[in-house]
Amino acid sequence: MSFPPPPFSYAITARCERTRARCGCFHTPHGPVHTPRFMPVGTLATVKGVMPAQLVGTGAEMVLANTYHLHLQPGEEIVREAGGLHRFMGWTGPLLTDSGGFQVFSLGDINRIDDEGVTFRSPRDGRQIALTPERSMAIQMALGADVAMAFDQCPPFPASEADVAAACRRTHAWLERCVASHQKSDQALFGIVQGGCFPRLREESARVVAAMDLPGIAVGGVSVGEPVEAMHRVVRQMGPLLPDPKPHYLMGVGSLREMALAVAEGFDLFDCVLPTRLGRHGTALVGGERWNLRNARFRHDHSPLDPGCPCPACTGHSRAYLHHLIRAGEMLAKTLLSLHNITQLERFSNAMGQAIREGCFAEDFAPWEADSPAAHTW
Amino acid sequence: MSFPPPPFSYAITARCERTRARCGCFHTPHGPVHTPRFMPVGTLATVKGVMPAQLVGTGAEMVLANTYHLHLQPGEEIVREAGGLHRFMGWTGPLLTDSGGFQVFSLGDINRIDDEGVTFRSPRDGRQIALTPERSMAIQMALGADVAMAFDQCPPFPASEADVAAACRRTHAWLERCVASHQKSDQALFGIVQGGCFPRLREESARVVAAMDLPGIAVGGVSVGEPVEAMHRVVRQMGPLLPDPKPHYLMGVGSLREMALAVAEGFDLFDCVLPTRLGRHGTALVGGERWNLRNARFRHDHSPLDPGCPCPACTGHSRAYLHHLIRAGEMLAKTLLSLHNITQLERFSNAMGQAIREGCFAEDFAPWEADSPAAHTW
Repeated sequence: MSFPPPPFSYAITARCERTRARCGCFHTPHGPVHTPRFMPVGTLATVKGVMPAQLVGTGAEMVLANTYHLHLQPGEEIVREAGGLHRFMGWTGPLLTDSGGFQVFSLGDINRIDDEGVTFRSPRDGRQIALTPERSMAIQMALGADVAMAFDQCPPFPASEADVAAACRRTHAWLERCVASHQKSDQALFGIVQGGCFPRLREESARVVAAMDLPGIAVGGVSVGEPVEAMHRVVRQMGPLLPDPKPHYLMGVGSLREMALAVAEGFDLFDCVLPTRLGRHGTALVGGERWNLRNARFRHDHSPLDPGCPCPACTGHSRAYLHHLIRAGEMLAKTLLSLHNITQLERFSNAMGQAIREGCFAEDFAPWEADSPAAHTW
Repeated sequence: MSFPPPPFSYAITARCERTRARCGCFHTPHGPVHTPRFMPVGTLATVKGVMPAQLVGTGAEMVLANTYHLHLQPGEEIVREAGGLHRFMGWTGPLLTDSGGFQVFSLGDINRIDDEGVTFRSPRDGRQIALTPERSMAIQMALGADVAMAFDQCPPFPASEADVAAACRRTHAWLERCVASHQKSDQALFGIVQGGCFPRLREESARVVAAMDLPGIAVGGVSVGEPVEAMHRVVRQMGPLLPDPKPHYLMGVGSLREMALAVAEGFDLFDCVLPTRLGRHGTALVGGERWNLRNARFRHDHSPLDPGCPCPACTGHSRAYLHHLIRAGEMLAKTLLSLHNITQLERFSNAMGQAIREGCFAEDFAPWEADSPAAHTW
């Protein structure tokens, strides 16, 4: 196939003339995803502390859930019984599940990695769990998200070129097995480019994964501890190598500067736990800065967190109230700041899309800095 | 005054012919409270994990906040600066603050109690804090709730008759000082009847407090550890002794059976931390029972928690999902179950009011048991 098959399609609706940036609409069985778009992370079938109806209010369109975590708790069979992840978690919009690979390699107590797959010890009950490309597909098919991700090996940073090359070869072999075993017409499978910080390996991986002609393509193995300049190099290298008509997903990236840089290189989709994790720890994203609301300077500050933000934290409460909730250990602070931070990234996504449509993306967002012309317009 | 002064008034709109039950409308500067009514507790200017807009959805009309806790964090001056508790917490409906007395006596590291007041050590920073009737009034006036409660001495259970009598004398003397120092026309002051489990002391206290002719009257010192039969005896004794045209508030009671019993004795207002505390610990109130949703029997139960309940937990999710969230330690479970449990008590309040209006309260709710005719109609 050369285009996402029905019910999937990706329509590019506008392009920037000076960069590779584009905006579009990725159609899924559970509705459209307007790109560029940040996807909040709902690890265990919930964006922590946030109800689905509240999530809609942030502007989020597609939510990511984690196969590794859901396999451990509650297990994919429970989710399948419930009628799939959408019904289980009460989110009626598009969903994406990762493959479990990243978590196995970063969180897992790994016993064995070989060409067959990975065996690790469950952190919940100590039992041995084998994850293979086929198993990851079976779990993701049971979960039933709109998009499933290929099972890949994401090498740690730093790793030698030989180790990264081996992980790439395995990732490519696993991708073929994922494609062979994925049998779900209402779920799109995205391939993942690996290759660490090695341009030769990245180029080869992009070529191999693009050749599979899947409905979407992702770049993984970034934001795994490498210097930010190295990540930028990978993003810049990848832009021209990704097949233009497919959605391009940069995994694990959700900072404004890197999103803007990646959009300028033609990336469309992003996810990151940071906005919600920062929110739970009392930090708000405001105009490109991170504000620790625990700070005493907010104690008497009765103004709204961000006067231009439509989220419940900004429209219903003050900085002093949020400061109080955090100091008091009140969980409402976590919910409010998670909603605020997601809203910020969705508004940033919208602002980039609008700038692309209006022909001012390059001027306003590339490169994007906290004092860029667009910094105070969204 | 013989009736709550403007802007307060209490209109009794229907009465049960066979019990003292009545329903009515308590008008406050921030709107009406339809009685009988359960009031959720928002200790630190937040019902834990619940946004004001969500709270409206439960049917809650009046929210209670704790003077003791708010004095310690963030301090009443911050709240006053913000424009009062309503604006600070973003709750636009009626609010009530307790006096701090109960918390000082039950939570406080008390240094000295005398006729002047109480001195205790702050659990936050160890500093000495003196709370007197005048200080409690000043704090509550700064907080600015619609209803302030008199500063009373609630003796522990068990206590000797002599000790309870002394606490009553002090409570009555403090009530006079509260009345003398309370100067806020848009805030109603309620007196509190004490007297423990001693009928003679209760009778005298009811007489003394009723004679103050305040806009409302509360019965305190119940649900403090005494046997449930003793609490029932106090409630039954108090009914005929409370001034009929005033709102009657039974403090700290929020179980269905006791609320129904108290409504039959003419009580109108209730509060209790239990519904929200149980919710945070994974327990749902369903049809008069307590369900621990952590229990494995809910693992595969994909039905709604309570099919007749309009709350977000019941309309948007399944028992299996709630079970999963609790097992996974997800805070969304706490929010959902808190909303559910509050909704249950508001629906129970509504059902009692409707039964009073329709003339079937005595039949359906007095005595109320889990298998009462009304148990499955709300």
